[in-house]
Amino acid sequence: MTALSKLNSIAANGNQADGSIIDGKADADSPILVEVTRGSMVESRHRASLAVVDSEGGVVFSSGAFERVVYGRSAVKPLQAIPLVESGAAEAFNLSDAEISIACASHDGEDRHLETVRAWLPRIGCSVSDLECGAHLPYHEASMIALLRSGGEPTAAHNNCSGKHTGFLTLAKHLDVDTKGYIKYEHPVQQRILGVLESMCGLELGDAPRGIDGCGIPVIGIPLGNIALGMARMADPSGQSEARQAACKKILGAMAAEPVMVAGSTRFCTRIMESTSGRALVKTGAEGVYCGAIPELGLGFALKVDDGATRAAEVVTGQILRKLGILSDAQAKSFAELIEPPLFNRVGKTIGQVRAAEKMPF
Amino acid sequence: MTALSKLNSIAANGNQADGSIIDGKADADSPILVEVTRGSMVESRHRASLAVVDSEGGVVFSSGAFERVVYGRSAVKPLQAIPLVESGAAEAFNLSDAEISIACASHDGEDRHLETVRAWLPRIGCSVSDLECGAHLPYHEASMIALLRSGGEPTAAHNNCSGKHTGFLTLAKHLDVDTKGYIKYEHPVQQRILGVLESMCGLELGDAPRGIDGCGIPVIGIPLGNIALGMARMADPSGQSEARQAACKKILGAMAAEPVMVAGSTRFCTRIMESTSGRALVKTGAEGVYCGAIPELGLGFALKVDDGATRAAEVVTGQILRKLGILSDAQAKSFAELIEPPLFNRVGKTIGQVRAAEKMPF
Repeated sequence: MTALSKLNSIAANGNQADGSIIDGKADADSPILVEVTRGSMVESRHRASLAVVDSEGGVVFSSGAFERVVYGRSAVKPLQAIPLVESGAAEAFNLSDAEISIACASHDGEDRHLETVRAWLPRIGCSVSDLECGAHLPYHEASMIALLRSGGEPTAAHNNCSGKHTGFLTLAKHLDVDTKGYIKYEHPVQQRILGVLESMCGLELGDAPRGIDGCGIPVIGIPLGNIALGMARMADPSGQSEARQAACKKILGAMAAEPVMVAGSTRFCTRIMESTSGRALVKTGAEGVYCGAIPELGLGFALKVDDGATRAAEVVTGQILRKLGILSDAQAKSFAELIEPPLFNRVGKTIGQVRAAEKMPF
Repeated sequence: MTALSKLNSIAANGNQADGSIIDGKADADSPILVEVTRGSMVESRHRASLAVVDSEGGVVFSSGAFERVVYGRSAVKPLQAIPLVESGAAEAFNLSDAEISIACASHDGEDRHLETVRAWLPRIGCSVSDLECGAHLPYHEASMIALLRSGGEPTAAHNNCSGKHTGFLTLAKHLDVDTKGYIKYEHPVQQRILGVLESMCGLELGDAPRGIDGCGIPVIGIPLGNIALGMARMADPSGQSEARQAACKKILGAMAAEPVMVAGSTRFCTRIMESTSGRALVKTGAEGVYCGAIPELGLGFALKVDDGATRAAEVVTGQILRKLGILSDAQAKSFAELIEPPLFNRVGKTIGQVRAAEKMPF
């Protein structure tokens, strides 16, 4: 087992003084972990790095460069939800498991997601117009079609991040600060989240590279191994304060109890949590990032597909869960269309597959 | 200038005798050509191989492994349209430039595309129900929304390949063969196309790796450099038969005259052909393939992004056209949002860019 402590200095190479863009460590050493086949040939390939670590930073296994600085994007939403619970806001507003789960979500915009967000907002004295995430059509195709057929327009409630943003508004209300501008780096809500990321991921982030996420909030560059450490500390919070321990358990318990709120009825995150009966709590992020916490093993993982492809991140996640024994060989077989999905053409014929590379290096 | 003739033996390693999937040459040597930035960091990276060649197989420049066997997907539609014109079918049915252009298209499903296909089909004694490509919603978002708001359902005419398929039906009618099953490998239409690919790309394809495209037709594995050769021979068909020369000129002329038919009003292919006034005739394909013909230089190019990302294929295409002087520096600047596009979040704020890698190897 490799100790992760040496990573703690890496974020110090964050923003360059001249404002130029850094490369977050070169990626020449990410191995090919996923192949996309069509007919008799491999058509495309995806490279990824990953780390599976314990709550003390011991690396259980890894592949590629876990020192690489990446944006965790939506895959770190469970970590970003910690202040909502730890602060007492969730208790004060009597949040349900469904609400805490959707605060960790990139949801699909199904009716159940919209109903949850719309019922929560007035309880904190807010409305959809307070959400600063912008609007987009639901990702769930049937819901998108139904919305348009009914003459409706997408609102900020349909945004896949609306649950997370409602969580931010809830925290702002509880902290008794102005909700306006809650997406800005300087706002107390985002500063509180930054502090939690620092303590959970085990490094200072004041000068870390940063940018803006699709929904407007800051994204912070963190070494991949340290993101895995943050997830491991959610899975095994025994070294944390009592309030932090309770928050981590509450959040992972809510995801396990309401997995459909985290993504959607047809989505990989939800179906993995359902098929493992909540033994693995997993979360996707844009640009090929994926994170997970496995409480029974006290482990966390994080992975980044070099090129940003979600289809590859999901396949690598399936292989990590197989290697950890969370998905048995029998389960892997019965969920084959989930973890190594076939590809179909426009008339429903199977024409290829997204699969683990023949020689997996871990 | 490197001669391409050594490539001619490569497809012979096509389908393996035991039916297992071949890897079409490993990709360890594709360089990183495209970076995706967000804030102060490079977030994702894309590797690609490419070749720019003349009609005799001389390699003008290349990057990565042009020997790699790839599926040309929709990027070879201009080559696949040759039999439609060369056979006399286009003349017999009095096809317009718009019709020949949409026969080379992956169109967006805008009204103009649907009108063109719907007006063409009855002239060959066919209807939408003869199209075997399957149905999907228009790629053009406003058209997709309008279709759903009007209560409509997508049909095979909306399929981005419906123009190509109408071209296949037209050829079948002209050859006086059964149109049913025109998408099958064994059908005379597909066999005629296979022969044209062989002669244009300069190699035998009888045992080449193959699969099925999204629209149901065969895809044939061909070394990337040979696909570029096929495009070069369209750009400079002087070594071909008179009928082939006329067909190549007619097809490229139709694409130049009706660029919006090839893709759509907002799409990269169309906008590149418009902005270069038809000096470059370009075509995208699924899984990160891109092809082009430049008649004034007598050159063709083909590229494949390892991971299949279209966003990267477009950026590499822009860089090829810059290096060839088809896009001047001034044009590259005025079309910056096209060839190195900014990325926006859900409220329209610029948060990053898809750009050429800082050190381009060609």
